[in-house]
Amino acid sequence: MSQTFNVAVEVSLREGIADPEGLTIERALPALGFSGVSGVRVGKSLRFVVEAPDEDEARQQVESMCERFLANPVIEDVEIAISGAS
Amino acid sequence: MSQTFNVAVEVSLREGIADPEGLTIERALPALGFSGVSGVRVGKSLRFVVEAPDEDEARQQVESMCERFLANPVIEDVEIAISGAS
Repeated sequence: MSQTFNVAVEVSLREGIADPEGLTIERALPALGFSGVSGVRVGKSLRFVVEAPDEDEARQQVESMCERFLANPVIEDVEIAISGAS
Repeated sequence: MSQTFNVAVEVSLREGIADPEGLTIERALPALGFSGVSGVRVGKSLRFVVEAPDEDEARQQVESMCERFLANPVIEDVEIAISGAS
């Protein structure tokens, strides 16, 4: 029988890849009164529900989705969190 | 003395707010061979380092940054994770 899993994926730029959006935020913050913020990196977060027979199967499906479609493996890293069937 | 904290912020659209990017992904997946994926929601993830005297102070600063600058509280929810001084 197939179960449903809640999935959270965080897609972030790999270290060393320029992040102009993050830089812009970092430069704007002091003018707004927020000092002491550094290393701002902006990524994408995706949340969805996957149907699969078990958690391993769900994770495999999500990994393959990320590789082929949701992220660019050349410049992006992916972090996958799968939480229990509901 | 001031410590540094690693901060992860997830900005997501509130429930009920239309998410065209998520919908587009959801509609594209079956054609790529991924069935059984539903409820796709896309948000933003931000990571940065904050300098503050303690964790409470750091959290307050991040909350105020989110409210004023990083998110639109009318349509977006924010989740903040702060991990220990390093």
